[in-house]
Amino acid sequence: MTEIRPLIMCGGNGTRLWPVSRAALPKQFASLMGERSTFQQTVLRSARFGTTQRPLIVTNALHRYLVEEQLAELGLKADVLVEPDRRDSGPAILAGAREIAREEPDTLVLVLASDHVIRDEAAFRDAVAAGLAPALSDHLVTFGVTPTHPATAYGYIQPGAPLDEGSWAVARFAEKPDAMRAAGYVLDGYLWNAGIFLFRAGALIAEYERHDPETVAAVDGAVTQAKRDLDVVCLEPGAFARARRQSIDYAVFEHTARAAVVPMACGWSDIGNWDALWSLGAGDPDGNVVQGEVVMRDARGCYVASDGPLTSVLGLSDIVVVASSDSILVADRRRAGEVKEIVASLQSQGRPQADTHPRVHRPWGWYEVIDSGTGFQVKRIVVRPSGRLSLQKHHHRAEHWVVVTGHARVTIGDDVHELGPNQHAHIPLGAVHRLENFGNTPVEIIEVQHGDYLGEDDIVRIEDIYARA
Amino acid sequence: MTEIRPLIMCGGNGTRLWPVSRAALPKQFASLMGERSTFQQTVLRSARFGTTQRPLIVTNALHRYLVEEQLAELGLKADVLVEPDRRDSGPAILAGAREIAREEPDTLVLVLASDHVIRDEAAFRDAVAAGLAPALSDHLVTFGVTPTHPATAYGYIQPGAPLDEGSWAVARFAEKPDAMRAAGYVLDGYLWNAGIFLFRAGALIAEYERHDPETVAAVDGAVTQAKRDLDVVCLEPGAFARARRQSIDYAVFEHTARAAVVPMACGWSDIGNWDALWSLGAGDPDGNVVQGEVVMRDARGCYVASDGPLTSVLGLSDIVVVASSDSILVADRRRAGEVKEIVASLQSQGRPQADTHPRVHRPWGWYEVIDSGTGFQVKRIVVRPSGRLSLQKHHHRAEHWVVVTGHARVTIGDDVHELGPNQHAHIPLGAVHRLENFGNTPVEIIEVQHGDYLGEDDIVRIEDIYARA
Repeated sequence: MTEIRPLIMCGGNGTRLWPVSRAALPKQFASLMGERSTFQQTVLRSARFGTTQRPLIVTNALHRYLVEEQLAELGLKADVLVEPDRRDSGPAILAGAREIAREEPDTLVLVLASDHVIRDEAAFRDAVAAGLAPALSDHLVTFGVTPTHPATAYGYIQPGAPLDEGSWAVARFAEKPDAMRAAGYVLDGYLWNAGIFLFRAGALIAEYERHDPETVAAVDGAVTQAKRDLDVVCLEPGAFARARRQSIDYAVFEHTARAAVVPMACGWSDIGNWDALWSLGAGDPDGNVVQGEVVMRDARGCYVASDGPLTSVLGLSDIVVVASSDSILVADRRRAGEVKEIVASLQSQGRPQADTHPRVHRPWGWYEVIDSGTGFQVKRIVVRPSGRLSLQKHHHRAEHWVVVTGHARVTIGDDVHELGPNQHAHIPLGAVHRLENFGNTPVEIIEVQHGDYLGEDDIVRIEDIYARA
Repeated sequence: MTEIRPLIMCGGNGTRLWPVSRAALPKQFASLMGERSTFQQTVLRSARFGTTQRPLIVTNALHRYLVEEQLAELGLKADVLVEPDRRDSGPAILAGAREIAREEPDTLVLVLASDHVIRDEAAFRDAVAAGLAPALSDHLVTFGVTPTHPATAYGYIQPGAPLDEGSWAVARFAEKPDAMRAAGYVLDGYLWNAGIFLFRAGALIAEYERHDPETVAAVDGAVTQAKRDLDVVCLEPGAFARARRQSIDYAVFEHTARAAVVPMACGWSDIGNWDALWSLGAGDPDGNVVQGEVVMRDARGCYVASDGPLTSVLGLSDIVVVASSDSILVADRRRAGEVKEIVASLQSQGRPQADTHPRVHRPWGWYEVIDSGTGFQVKRIVVRPSGRLSLQKHHHRAEHWVVVTGHARVTIGDDVHELGPNQHAHIPLGAVHRLENFGNTPVEIIEVQHGDYLGEDDIVRIEDIYARA
């Protein structure tokens, strides 16, 4: 089989899966089904082709360290392309193709979304195999999912003339339809547009160039002037900002004469909302799909997931309950798509639960506020191996650290020493200090802050390996 | 007005208001409506009669310190009668009457439940005033609530011949009826049996004696051999165990010829389940009653209360959502009474959420586990003024204390010193130690435990002012 370079798109927000999915940690990084995130499942799936090269992950600056952390969990390497801002899928895919074309423009690129579920991996691999011939003859191949119902949430693809074994030219792309029109599309053999593509890097760039040369020039600049650091490529912001904000469908596929489609029936889902997760789950005899510590009594057709609190449901049907430590959603399952409206209203009210989780990810690991009161706050801080917090000081708080796991290197003023489990350090108000992990296992500490102001913005960074100083 | 001694019954469990009400802190001590618990509201209501003496609170050993804490919050004094075990309302009321009769058998006793809501206090006072004449003529007066609907959850009282102005002899007591029978009772002018009574202490004892002299002898023994310590009377367990476990209705009221009834319409509720709290609440225009951080979108007729997590409800009607940090209930509001079945099933599964809250009350204050992981656990500990933890040691854990509020006296081995805010102490494995508060404000500390076993039972108490050593 021909070598393929996976290009994994990792920039989405997924507000319809709130409260699990939030801007700071969107659904592709969450463990929604099983232990691994769909991002991790996508990386593993692409590695199982056997003929694929190291994937290129396109993500934004906010999620760069999450991507690296989740790759490290898998023990897999990948290249990471960091978008300075969100300009929709067109410029993102184009930048990936341009980066790949730097080495070899003939490389076959398989564009995958990081938030899709594919239950029949063999069928998916067969579809990709069927896409090779048209892609090698410089077609832009899109994979069209055989509809299982007249969905109104997806665009549709009408296949035209046959091309090769298992592939067709695209007759037309159709917008998301209403229910009536969707039923017609399904009867007429249209396919769902799933946003999975296969093409030669050079072919995509050539077709983009034909329809939007300004964006190609902008992205060219962003790639050639990118900041490169080991596996990470940060696109140059000024140039990238000149790329037209457009989906790859509008930018290329709807105009090109070289679009091809390969139908596939592979148990695909984009887990667009909680109802989709209910559909995908293994229901009990009452049709309930549950996850976490859940007690059901005389309930039917419910999706109930808790990542902490014991959740009990009594005498209700077809509802969704999703519970996390700081937020709970209770909704009519058939109206799960409206969750994004709740998130919008929380955002307009300035509630932190709209966009951020209690567990805050940082380049060096994560922290979580576990308690707070008048004049104090308590955090659990986990530092990954090689993780180093900045050299810093605070104007309004003193801190106490108790190491509970691992061995930390602790700097306070001029004093540097190792601190192991059950050891304590006090950081007086105003003292310059630093927490680092040079060991091979995570360091966990409990931090007790004491002061008259405890906001995250009371921090003076003197030195930082993540360029935040 | 004649002097009255309130006897406040405080022994119930209230599992139908789970997860707020649990055995360790039942509904009468919870802030279900407003800032004060119904126990506190009952004490305040009895104090507002203007003619009442210091109340006598009947409770069990588990809740003694909660009673004292909640009285202290009100700045009010009361006597406390501690039951060694639960023997239903008969022996509890009899013990209260016997204790009161020790000083003066002619004392008028007003028996109140600590978990009732009375919205029209003037109407209630008028009813009690109407009960004085029959009580002074040695009747046992019960207050019958004018039904607002054909409830099946209460027993009924049929009034008979008129006695005094506003009181009647009782024709009969009727068991909790089915719906059909309840409708008939309401039409026939029956009243709800609310468990509120007025009688001379001596009159109740005499009638109890007539029907169950063994129990009167047992309770006599429990009172005369009680351990007395300032305001607290602990009934003698051996004698009290010989009292027949029976409700006061079965033990006395259903047999006596001297039962009288005073009707009252005072906005009474025993807040028997979450649906009752919905009925009592001030609904918004959609008929939703909400408490805490709650977002409603296209929801109607719901009761939603959260003591922490942001709770969102989308597109649902007539449901109950009650959220606490460790447990969530989502139920059909019309089936709220079945919550006790959920609690029973949690108990049979041995889940701690069935009976205990994360915040654990102790004689000296409370603690709450705020985080835990492999080999460590973090607690917030609050010690009331004059609160003193036992002198103790642990075999399996070391501890770090950081004081965040107040001034603590800390003993470690032979060393005793004061620790103020932002100060730290380390208690090595096996060291004898003690935490005490001799100040006038609460002491709050964050405790980080480190060790191979962190169960509450790893404690050797060497000395304890609450007799737990």
